[in-house]
Amino acid sequence: MGDSTLILLRHGESEWNALNLFTGWVDVDLTEKGRQEALRAGELIKELDRLPDVVYTSLLRRAITTANIALDKADRHWIPVHRDWRLNERHYGALQGLNKAETKEKYGEEQFMAWRRSYDTPPPPLDPTSEYSQDDDPRYADIPGGPPKTECLKDVVARFVPYFTEAIVPDLRAGKTVLIAAHGNSLRALVKYLDQMSDEDVVGLNIPTGIPLRYDLDGDLRPKVIGGTYLDPEAAAAGAAAVAAQGAK
Amino acid sequence: MGDSTLILLRHGESEWNALNLFTGWVDVDLTEKGRQEALRAGELIKELDRLPDVVYTSLLRRAITTANIALDKADRHWIPVHRDWRLNERHYGALQGLNKAETKEKYGEEQFMAWRRSYDTPPPPLDPTSEYSQDDDPRYADIPGGPPKTECLKDVVARFVPYFTEAIVPDLRAGKTVLIAAHGNSLRALVKYLDQMSDEDVVGLNIPTGIPLRYDLDGDLRPKVIGGTYLDPEAAAAGAAAVAAQGAK
Repeated sequence: MGDSTLILLRHGESEWNALNLFTGWVDVDLTEKGRQEALRAGELIKELDRLPDVVYTSLLRRAITTANIALDKADRHWIPVHRDWRLNERHYGALQGLNKAETKEKYGEEQFMAWRRSYDTPPPPLDPTSEYSQDDDPRYADIPGGPPKTECLKDVVARFVPYFTEAIVPDLRAGKTVLIAAHGNSLRALVKYLDQMSDEDVVGLNIPTGIPLRYDLDGDLRPKVIGGTYLDPEAAAAGAAAVAAQGAK
Repeated sequence: MGDSTLILLRHGESEWNALNLFTGWVDVDLTEKGRQEALRAGELIKELDRLPDVVYTSLLRRAITTANIALDKADRHWIPVHRDWRLNERHYGALQGLNKAETKEKYGEEQFMAWRRSYDTPPPPLDPTSEYSQDDDPRYADIPGGPPKTECLKDVVARFVPYFTEAIVPDLRAGKTVLIAAHGNSLRALVKYLDQMSDEDVVGLNIPTGIPLRYDLDGDLRPKVIGGTYLDPEAAAAGAAAVAAQGAK
């Protein structure tokens, strides 16, 4: 065969999603709604003909808790776990902690959308004296040069795709079904790679929270269906529209 | 230095602890009280001068969830995770699912205590047709000869100590602080090994639920304090007495 299955899961609603704040690497918790989304994701995963054999998460609480809740619900709490910073959300630089609607008003629609969605425009860097600085955070002590100060999507592709290739692809080649619990932009980076999307096309890609996205891959690790298949397509369409509308009050 | 720290954590109250049933490898969930115990364990761990760098769990939900809750509370949700069946609770054979008080009444105090606490008397084996049979459980597919049908404490020592030596000791030698989230009898097996207890003395050892037990180890991995130090000694003494009293109605 050589076939394998990848299941992508964006974490459920976080406290800062609910407040419409740029979050990035700030380690906020899920809301109760986010926990319910994770439970629902677990119910959907439990019905799969191929259950996750291994899970990869970022180092951020909202992805880790989403994976914990979903896997427990799916009776796969016992599978091996790998965590890596390269699955983290895009670092939003100096925007972290700012309200999205206020940022849009202050800087204008064009600048706002450039920071949110352009492929290679990073926001201004995080000030080292910011309360959100993670230079001393032990979880990032192994990153050469320390944690990033800001990132564009291109930067996320540059860190996540090599990790995918080196760490996750061997599991896929071994025929394992892999669950990746991560973030809007780290999953956009991966989908761009899997679907071979152009830098322009990925700008319009929105991944909804809490709805598992299944990619069946052939022996060359190419998706059998470009874009994959959401386990709950109706909810996914509504969720993607909601992501696209962020920045509105 | 060469010094290292090991933190042992027995899972909080499970649904079958609450019902006074023999549990063994049956994969029951924590009760709400058990979740509260795990939270409290996390608060105690958070205050340590040495925080866990890595966590090891069994493949059973009650230990996994206890670790997830405690580490989240201690802000160490992001550390590497290893899971292995060799940390599982002792397999209680045909006793699994039976009420402890009723079993004591039916078989008498002497037989009851022999099954619960003697070092080398396993209970009768699990019937392969039992609803609790795990011969087809994928999580145990890698165990040579399949999952055990019954175990005495000696059997648990024989499977857990080699895993400790091969998998966990290298982390300790690297100076890491290791959290082990496991079960009454798998932790008794480890403590017997660490403290070099005799087969007779381990019979009287009771480890309470949900209270982290800290072992500081010297360069030869010998405990600096025999028996270790509970992070909440008063609660630990009360908890150990409660474990010893199980079997009473």
